[in-house]
Formats: sequence, C-alpha cells, structure tokens
Amino acid sequence: MMCKQSKIKIELFTLVHDMSLERVFSKNFAYNEFFQEQILKKKKEHSYRIFKKVNRLAGDGQFPKALEYTSGEKLITVWCSNDYLGMSCHPSVKNEVRNALEKFGCGAGGTRNIAGNSILHENLEKTLAGLHKKEGALLFTSCFVANDTTLFTLAKALPGCHIFSDAGNHASMIQGIRNSQVPKHIFRHNDPEHLEELLKNVDKDVPKIVAFETVHSMSGAVCPLEELCDVTHKYGGLAFIDEVHSIGLYGEHGAGIGERDGVMHKMDIISGTLGKAFGNIGGYIAADSILIDTVRSYGAGFIFTTSLPPTVLAGAKKAVEILASDEGRMLRKTHQENVKYLREKLLEYGFPIEHTPSHIIPIKIGDPKKCSAVSDTLLSEKGHYIQAINYPTVSRGQERLRFAPTPHHTKEMMDLLVSDLKVVWEKLELPFTGLQCRKECQFCQKPILFDYYESREKCTIPNCPNIASAA
Amino acid sequence: MMCKQSKIKIELFTLVHDMSLERVFSKNFAYNEFFQEQILKKKKEHSYRIFKKVNRLAGDGQFPKALEYTSGEKLITVWCSNDYLGMSCHPSVKNEVRNALEKFGCGAGGTRNIAGNSILHENLEKTLAGLHKKEGALLFTSCFVANDTTLFTLAKALPGCHIFSDAGNHASMIQGIRNSQVPKHIFRHNDPEHLEELLKNVDKDVPKIVAFETVHSMSGAVCPLEELCDVTHKYGGLAFIDEVHSIGLYGEHGAGIGERDGVMHKMDIISGTLGKAFGNIGGYIAADSILIDTVRSYGAGFIFTTSLPPTVLAGAKKAVEILASDEGRMLRKTHQENVKYLREKLLEYGFPIEHTPSHIIPIKIGDPKKCSAVSDTLLSEKGHYIQAINYPTVSRGQERLRFAPTPHHTKEMMDLLVSDLKVVWEKLELPFTGLQCRKECQFCQKPILFDYYESREKCTIPNCPNIASAA
Repeated sequence: MMCKQSKIKIELFTLVHDMSLERVFSKNFAYNEFFQEQILKKKKEHSYRIFKKVNRLAGDGQFPKALEYTSGEKLITVWCSNDYLGMSCHPSVKNEVRNALEKFGCGAGGTRNIAGNSILHENLEKTLAGLHKKEGALLFTSCFVANDTTLFTLAKALPGCHIFSDAGNHASMIQGIRNSQVPKHIFRHNDPEHLEELLKNVDKDVPKIVAFETVHSMSGAVCPLEELCDVTHKYGGLAFIDEVHSIGLYGEHGAGIGERDGVMHKMDIISGTLGKAFGNIGGYIAADSILIDTVRSYGAGFIFTTSLPPTVLAGAKKAVEILASDEGRMLRKTHQENVKYLREKLLEYGFPIEHTPSHIIPIKIGDPKKCSAVSDTLLSEKGHYIQAINYPTVSRGQERLRFAPTPHHTKEMMDLLVSDLKVVWEKLELPFTGLQCRKECQFCQKPILFDYYESREKCTIPNCPNIASAA
Repeated sequence: MMCKQSKIKIELFTLVHDMSLERVFSKNFAYNEFFQEQILKKKKEHSYRIFKKVNRLAGDGQFPKALEYTSGEKLITVWCSNDYLGMSCHPSVKNEVRNALEKFGCGAGGTRNIAGNSILHENLEKTLAGLHKKEGALLFTSCFVANDTTLFTLAKALPGCHIFSDAGNHASMIQGIRNSQVPKHIFRHNDPEHLEELLKNVDKDVPKIVAFETVHSMSGAVCPLEELCDVTHKYGGLAFIDEVHSIGLYGEHGAGIGERDGVMHKMDIISGTLGKAFGNIGGYIAADSILIDTVRSYGAGFIFTTSLPPTVLAGAKKAVEILASDEGRMLRKTHQENVKYLREKLLEYGFPIEHTPSHIIPIKIGDPKKCSAVSDTLLSEKGHYIQAINYPTVSRGQERLRFAPTPHHTKEMMDLLVSDLKVVWEKLELPFTGLQCRKECQFCQKPILFDYYESREKCTIPNCPNIASAA
C-alpha cells in the first residue's frame, strides 16, 4: 500500500535527489521533543494548568470546607465547585451510598448488556424520566459521554441530518457534532432569530437537531428556552437541550429551566448530569422511549463501557428525590438568596462582576496571568478557593473567576470572601470598575437581552442603571 | 446560506417541476417512525438487547451470587462479569470506599481543573504509574474515554500521524482513531508480520501510533506483545496497548501481560481500567510524563468532564495494592486454576469451547437466536447467568457465550454449571462437537499460533491433538 507520505517522498526523490536521500537516512520522529514543544506552547500562552489539590470535606457541617495541599495542609473554603447544593455529602445521600456499597459492592462489573445492569440502573432511569416528564431516560458514565454519544449517534443515524449548534455550546456537544461530520450550522449564542435564519435555508423535511444549553456554565446566561424550542419545531427539528448547570437548581422539582419555564414538553431531548447538583458522577438523557431505545441500541459510548456502580446509582437517586421535595425547594431558595447576597456584596465593593440571571457570578479578568494571580493569592493568603478559568475552558480574552456560592456558605463566609478579595485585588492593582452589564454577547456581539432575563428573576440591586428597565 | 439539501431541491425543481412541488409541501421528517424502523431492524436481525436485571451481591461470602429480576426475584450465579477477582466486594476495598465516603463524600464536584482534583486523584495516578513502571499516569472517567481521547488527541497533535490498528480492536479505540481522521492501516489481528508489511510503506520519520490489545475480550486471544512492540519501534512508531482484560490478572504485581512477559519498558502507552479486575469504575493511561502531560493538557475527554469521585479513587487504589501483593498472587493462581478446571470440565462433556491461552472461555454458537436461547434457558431454569454475546459486541456469525470464572467460583459451582449446561444444550439440540481449536483467526483467517501461546501457559488438557506440540 502506498501512503501519502511515501508518495511525497518519491516526488521529492524525483525532483531534488539530495534532499530525498537526506530524508531516507533521517531519524525517527522525535516524539518527546514534539510533546515538550506542545507543553512549552501552553506555558508560553499561560494556559498550562497546575491543578489545585483540594480534598473537599464531607463530615457533618464541614461543607463547603476543604483541605488544600499546594504547600502543606491547609483548611480552605471552596467557592467554585459544581456540587452546587452540597448533595455529595448530604447525610441521606451518603446513607444510600453506604447501603448500596454493603449490599452490592463498589463496581457494576460489566457493561449494561453483560452483567452490568441492575434494578438500581433501571430505577434511576425511571426516576429521571419522571423528573423530566419524559417516557424514558438513559444513563451514561458522564454527561460528556451522554452529549457526545447522543448527538453523534442521532446525527449519523438520521438520513441527511443537519445540526444547528449554539455558538456557546460545551466541548462535549461540539465533539459529538464535529465527529458526526454532518452539515452543521452555528447560530449566535442564545439567539432564536439567527437560528431561524439558518433553519430557513434547509428543507423542512430534512431531519435536523438543534443543540443548546439552558444555563451557560461560564457566562451564567440563561437561554430563551421556549423561543428556541418553538423555532426548532417550526422548521421540523428536534431540540436537544443540555440542562447540566440547571438540573437540581431550578423548577418546582429541580428538573431545571425547562420545568421553571413550564416548557419541558417542548424539549425533545434533555441531557443532564449526576455530577453537579446531584453530587455524584454520571450523565443521562431523557426523551421519548423510542428515541432512548435507538441511542441505547446504537450508541457506542453507551454500549461498550462499564456501567455506573451501584453506589453512584443509589446516591444519585436519593439526591434527585431530595431535590424534588420540600427540602430541595428550601435549598434552592437559600441558594438563590446567597447568590443574590454575594452578587450585591461584590457590587457594593465595586468588583467588575458580570450580571447574569443564573446562580453563576463571573468576574471577567481577560488575562490568564492576572486571573491565576488572583486565584493563587486568594488561596495561599486568604484560604478561599476560586479557580482561575483560563483557555480552553473559556476562549482567550474571556479569562475569569467564577463564583458559585451554595446554600451552605454563610453570610459571614461571603462577607469575609469579599473583604479578602478586596485586599488581593488592591495588591494586584486590578480596577474596581463596578457592574459589567456587557451590552453584547461574548460569542455573537449581539445585544444581551437583560430586560428579558431579568423579568424572569427580579434583581434587587439598587440603582443599577443597566437593568433599570427590568421591572 | 445555501445548504446541500436546498441545492438538491432547486435542481429537482428545475428538472422535474412536479416532484419538486411535492417536496415543498411535504411534511416534516417523521422522527418517531424512523426510530421505530431502526429498532425493528435490530429486532429482525436478533441483535435487539433486553438487559438482564442483575443485582450482584456483595455481602460476606455472597460473591459471585446475584439477585435476578426478569421474572420475580431469583438467586443466581454470575459467570460473565468482568469483576474478575471479586474486588468490587473485597472487605478492604469496601472499607476504603466507606472511609472516603465519610471523609470526602460521593462526588468530586468538578473537573480536574475546577475543584475536582484531590490528593486521592494524584495518589492513584502515582500508584498506577508505579504499577506499570512508567513516569506518569492519567485518570479518565472510563477506559472507553481513555482510549478514545488518547488516540484522538495524539493522532490529531502529531503532524502527519498515521495509525496502525489491530483488526480486533475494541470500539473505544476504533472511535478515537476514526474520529481523528488521520490515515489508518488495519493489520490482521495479532499479526506482527502484517503490521510490518504496512509499516514499511510509511516513511520512518512520519509519526505513527500502533494500537492493539494484549488480551482480546471476546476471543480470549493473547497478543505476541514483544514482537508487536519491536516491529512498531523498528519503524519509528509509538506502541499504544490496551491491557484492560489483563490488568490485575497477569504478572507478579498484576500489571498485566506486559509485566508477565517482562516487556513493560517496550510499551509506550498502556491503557487500563479500574472497572474490571480492580472492581470499581474509570480508566487510565500510563506513559512517559511528557506524553501524559500532553494528553492532560489537550484531551477534551479528559479536560471537560467531572472527575472520578473520592470513593472510586480510594476503592481502586486499595484494589491495585491488594492485587500487587501476595494476596493478589494467590487470587491470580486460583483464578487460573479455576479457568483450567472449568475449561477441562466443559471439554470433558464435549462442549465446543474455543481453546484460548487467557482466562476467557468462549463457546461460539454463531447464531444470535440460539445464543440467546441458551443464555435465557440457563438463567430461567438453572439459575446460571452467562450473557449471550451478540452483534455488535462480536461481529455477526461470531455470537458466543463467554465464561469468566473467578477465584470465588467453587468446584461444586463449576460442576453444577457444566451439568446444567448439558441439559440445556440437549434440550435445544445443540451439537457436542468438542474442542474448537480453530486453525485460523476469526479476523484475518491467518493460522493461530497455538504453540506460541501455549508455551506461555501450559495446558493440562489430556489428548488435545491441536496442542500436542505445546510442551
């Protein structure tokens, strides 16, 4: 077999004999030098990552504290975990995990098809389907795999499928979409009008998937869910919606923004995670049972992998149940109160926070070195852990701190955080420019619809000029 | 924007006006009908899967028993789990999981970079690197993700990379390779000569990855590891080797076939799982630290996903330690003895087993309906669970039962299994054709090197003509 490189060599041989001879006697490819260059590149652009060593503590009353080990053991407060409501250490969740461990052990022991399917898997799927008012649900080892596998599998299966993907979509969706190699159309972040423009150009009877997120993990934006679903359906598409950053946190039973907005019936496929508000690990989709059965039957990322352990299934199910109950509603209320309190406190001090309608409070710094400096100093000198979010988690120039207070952070903790952050901010000579109600979206440079968002969750920030019309 | 479908429509419009009008007024794509067809297709070809409902029991002395729920609760014996040594319910493993749960909770709460990295992650990576005598190791949520992400990331990063992939490779490797879209060359299963033929055709200085498995999950074949590594290096390639079905089971410390054969230093990248012999969930790679750092820094499937929970990390680390100790060596000895005993017992009764040099005992049935019938009858009438392995886990025509006895299956259990299987076999009128030492590989139709394999693990089957030369 003649490969591309061999052909190139032969051409070189014909054209420039000396060079070709050199190539014949050249050494093998220098892998290690190449890898070193790749790492050096990361270091030069300040996107090389050194993970913090954070043992989050789960004993009675310890959440959201952790032991950090960058330079010796140190008790710190965590402000950036996606264990949004502390479910990973809820006594009832732990109790279920403990019981499952005793009865069924710590590993599933096989794929879903080969010795790795239990009543626990099926019950959790039923619970999740019920939560989202869908006929069925399907578990995956993570929501990365759920998004990747579902989008890839459906796009490949549906004849002539086109995908319409929000410009702000998560890496897991992008991976599934790209790898499917079907025609794709990127619409401006959370912009139903642009989506419609793009949808118009494709025949109505061509199968289409429109993929987006309800709460954007890094900007904290909330999508105009119903509008996006409606326009998707107007042009004969299926709406695939990632609710990972809203599941457990919004809606009467914690089913997410879809439940809060009363539009779950318009969401064709919902993807969610067991690893954030539900405090465990794993992901899932919920949809019509025939669609679920198709992904179950054809999705490689579902079929060929060891299934979730009994411990995870039992813990996640209990977390879903708790967050669907009065206790969950109370946690969500306190969560939102704390988010509001911290946001207002940060504004009071003049920090340049971005105002968002969700529970995520970003402060854009826009420089990876400065971003890391704030994070590192705050951790080492003050014992607050807020990860610097640099490329590739956000695009270059969008480097930021991302605060995610939980219902278990006290007012005292928040007060201390803000005053400590002030000291670090001043030390690093960063500007106190106040509320950054950006006028346009970071992805599409289109106006951000603050009125629209704010009408969904009223703001109590006094004298905020940008949102004065939001009543 | 004008999409492909629109163009087609316009062309149709120009050429055949009536048809085009029909299309303009056609309905949206009928998703549900399409999905129903896909499921019907599976049902017609008997590859539609109905999962058994198996709660594997983990109380004292209960392994390898389970409760099965297809028609009411029933106590059964599991013969097909990849929890090969019962580590999922080892008291010390459970103890570590329980302690981690109390101290650190049941979820990591973030990606490795954002609040989801702990000392437990780093310690387990060090332990795994040490096990494989490599500089570094990297954890993933599964070995599916480890294989997919590593192969994809390296193939995309290395300039002009070619991949050489064993014909029998697992779906996870195939996915990473395919999606990378680099030139790929499929070599005949476990065939170093064919690999060499293919490698010869690509310039030595072009970066290459050669990917294969040590123990094949479904055929039970063991690869000629050193030869494959040597030929890889002769042509300037990196050897990527999946040890998922051998990790914990072979070698002085359970590091796999690489350790058993004394060639770990020739393996550039080893991928392994925490979900089979190590009894938990998750996957990893072990390699030079600069390669590990590259995958850590560039691999989307590593970066953008919630990290493994503390419970899994603690349990897996203990399992690795146990299997590296005298207890592990004893378990491996009993494991191999039981495999031998069951294999001989099945042969004694004339079952058409395929003789393999590993711990996997396949009986090829070659028909999905018959394969399911044996499995279902054995479960419902006799209480033994051996999953029918049909397409797509094996290719069509290769449908099989796959026995994986553990050190905890007693001789009495094995005797009962074989005599019960005989009853079912006769009832279903299947032939007792005896040992199927196939003369050629199922993938490449090349001779299988039984002498070679058998010299690695001596057989005690009396009067086996096919392996008489194996002394």
